[in-house]
Amino acid sequence: MTRKNAFYAQSGGVTAVINASAAGVIETARKHSDRIGKVLAGRNGITGALREELIDTSLEDEATIRALLHTPGGAFGSCRYKLKNIDESRREYERLIEVFRAHDIGYFFYNGGGDSQDTAFKISQMAERMGYPIQCIGVPKTVDNDLPFTDCCPGFGSVAKYVATSTLEASLDIQSMCDSSTKVFILEVMGRHAGWIAASGGLAGKEPGEAPHIIIFPEHPFDREAFLARVDDCVKRYGFCVVVASEGAQYEDGRFLSEAGPRDAFGHAQLGGVAPTLANMVKQSLGHKYHWAVADYLQRSARHIASQVDLEQAYEVGKAAVEFALAGKNGVMPIIRRDSSSPYRWSIGEAQLNEVANQEKKMPIHYTTDDGFGITADCRAYLEPLIQGEAYPPFENGIPCRARLRNQLVEKRLKTAFDI
Amino acid sequence: MTRKNAFYAQSGGVTAVINASAAGVIETARKHSDRIGKVLAGRNGITGALREELIDTSLEDEATIRALLHTPGGAFGSCRYKLKNIDESRREYERLIEVFRAHDIGYFFYNGGGDSQDTAFKISQMAERMGYPIQCIGVPKTVDNDLPFTDCCPGFGSVAKYVATSTLEASLDIQSMCDSSTKVFILEVMGRHAGWIAASGGLAGKEPGEAPHIIIFPEHPFDREAFLARVDDCVKRYGFCVVVASEGAQYEDGRFLSEAGPRDAFGHAQLGGVAPTLANMVKQSLGHKYHWAVADYLQRSARHIASQVDLEQAYEVGKAAVEFALAGKNGVMPIIRRDSSSPYRWSIGEAQLNEVANQEKKMPIHYTTDDGFGITADCRAYLEPLIQGEAYPPFENGIPCRARLRNQLVEKRLKTAFDI
Repeated sequence: MTRKNAFYAQSGGVTAVINASAAGVIETARKHSDRIGKVLAGRNGITGALREELIDTSLEDEATIRALLHTPGGAFGSCRYKLKNIDESRREYERLIEVFRAHDIGYFFYNGGGDSQDTAFKISQMAERMGYPIQCIGVPKTVDNDLPFTDCCPGFGSVAKYVATSTLEASLDIQSMCDSSTKVFILEVMGRHAGWIAASGGLAGKEPGEAPHIIIFPEHPFDREAFLARVDDCVKRYGFCVVVASEGAQYEDGRFLSEAGPRDAFGHAQLGGVAPTLANMVKQSLGHKYHWAVADYLQRSARHIASQVDLEQAYEVGKAAVEFALAGKNGVMPIIRRDSSSPYRWSIGEAQLNEVANQEKKMPIHYTTDDGFGITADCRAYLEPLIQGEAYPPFENGIPCRARLRNQLVEKRLKTAFDI
Repeated sequence: MTRKNAFYAQSGGVTAVINASAAGVIETARKHSDRIGKVLAGRNGITGALREELIDTSLEDEATIRALLHTPGGAFGSCRYKLKNIDESRREYERLIEVFRAHDIGYFFYNGGGDSQDTAFKISQMAERMGYPIQCIGVPKTVDNDLPFTDCCPGFGSVAKYVATSTLEASLDIQSMCDSSTKVFILEVMGRHAGWIAASGGLAGKEPGEAPHIIIFPEHPFDREAFLARVDDCVKRYGFCVVVASEGAQYEDGRFLSEAGPRDAFGHAQLGGVAPTLANMVKQSLGHKYHWAVADYLQRSARHIASQVDLEQAYEVGKAAVEFALAGKNGVMPIIRRDSSSPYRWSIGEAQLNEVANQEKKMPIHYTTDDGFGITADCRAYLEPLIQGEAYPPFENGIPCRARLRNQLVEKRLKTAFDI
């Protein structure tokens, strides 16, 4: 068997646990040093390969690689960059081959969501189509939980735990103030096209009257009147109302609420913000005192409240990717299979990249209540296992510790630069 | 010695650890059952006393009271209600005396910030001015950290830890994406009049270039040009820029940034939001891709990332308040004294309520850098001890456990109701 170097890159929006997948890849590769030489990480994702900016992870000691397990963000840099088809952009693929050949790269691990798995699929075709032998394995990652085939996506469980916990905590706050102060609280969470993250807010409460009282999903057209009626009813019934709203909330005609919002002094559409838009409606129609929060990046980087299940799955898909490559596979992605919900048991399965690419898994209709404002018992049974366990990072001097990588680039071997 | 019941109430904005003060009061009172009968808690703060809605905490078992230590929000309900002076609103004080007499209340513990300590001071005068013997002790609490005399305020350390941690985590996220995506991130935090919370974001980084790169304090007039120049410089120098902005940020003329923001379709001022206002400036003047978050109530209810130091101090001021009362004191408030910064040592001191009331402690000028955008070593030395230790709550089924109180009211003894 020949020994080849591996390329690993992070792609798209990062998560609290994507670096755990990196650790899974690197630690597993190190265990197979007879087959895999160095793991070279793309600086800022695939653009690092195109620019020949390759981080030499072999210079990082064991403890530093282990520390990736508690480090949020993308340790090697990520990117938003989509490769076109081989036929459309032959120049890019030729450049990749040039770089891979110069650095003796035979394995390609691409850690990302739907768009990224599309890129990974294209790379996996390079051997066949362009004659450069490479095995390409996707490593799933996305807080949006919208990849097909896999039961869940590494990165999601931790956001879900953050959102459920934050919803619960803020609800206890509002509840204690509502008699004379804030009555409506709106938390905006991520999920442009799928309501998985918003749904996880529903785990904060179970009994009638427990918050959140309203969840707004992108899958359900937003009905202003129904929303306001429900808010008012909650305030009358419970004294307060907690709303978890997906950033992707949209009207029946497809307009996003965040776009339909207020305009600035120059008439420009105000930047995003489903929560302030909803708060405005409440204020103008009902007059209740409100507060709103937008969790934005805090939710997907909140490693301090990561789910232990999520962390383990993130590590295992990285590990499995290397094992797949060593088993001679190409164009596949390890997935999470749910073997049982209660007790929760999972294992690693396998999906074909050509089937994964560019598909979005939305919430099944039976996961939301008929009124479109809540989650069902089925949804709860799906979500609950994913937020189990508290994978606390170590702290030093009051704040979380993180891996401090050298991120040293290997010397360039090509004479030409590449413009992106 | 006669045995009297005690009244305890929570007032103003709640915190992640105000219930720890409640536990300190109740547990300490229970240890002195020869002197203190029941602790009756005001339902929704002082309004509970006026309405004769008194929660019988003696019905809660030991474990439930202990669970208050890990329960955010105000377990008995809080309120925003300010008593006027005795001369201006004799009716209210007469009602309080009526209720206290009916329930044999001889001790009054009021857990709140500056406004609340003003109320506590007025109550403490009732014995002398109105002939009803009561000992009133304030219990300090405020996330804003703006009470005088005390070195810090219970509630603040936990917000500070949340903000420092969140700033660090989000910064790692932005840093990994900035090459091809978001370059500017703005986190809006609380602190209407004082920049303590914003300052705590500064604990996320220490070395040059580490985030946050800009902190916006209410104490420093906001200079749009200087801000934008600094943002641009950071992006050029480090590739990204992280901003922590206080909700109280204001222009030289005193206008709040949140009020100077965009207007909706009807011309109404857009609801709050320093972060989106700053993001708009960045977009229009520099064109950088940005993201923003507004932590709002999440920060002050984030019990899951509470500071151990803060939790202990919150408990101890509750305990000390009861001990002060038993020592025959009136019109005082236990405070935190800093005996040493390194190593951090603190003890309980005492302040006079008449001196505490209605004073705000702003950040000292030497705690912010000359440019007004950062914190100094002195500030860091002050803040760091307050966020030490992770006081994790227990979790069940993936989310934090909280105290489940009965909150049963004692039977009313008065025939009259009281309108507030």
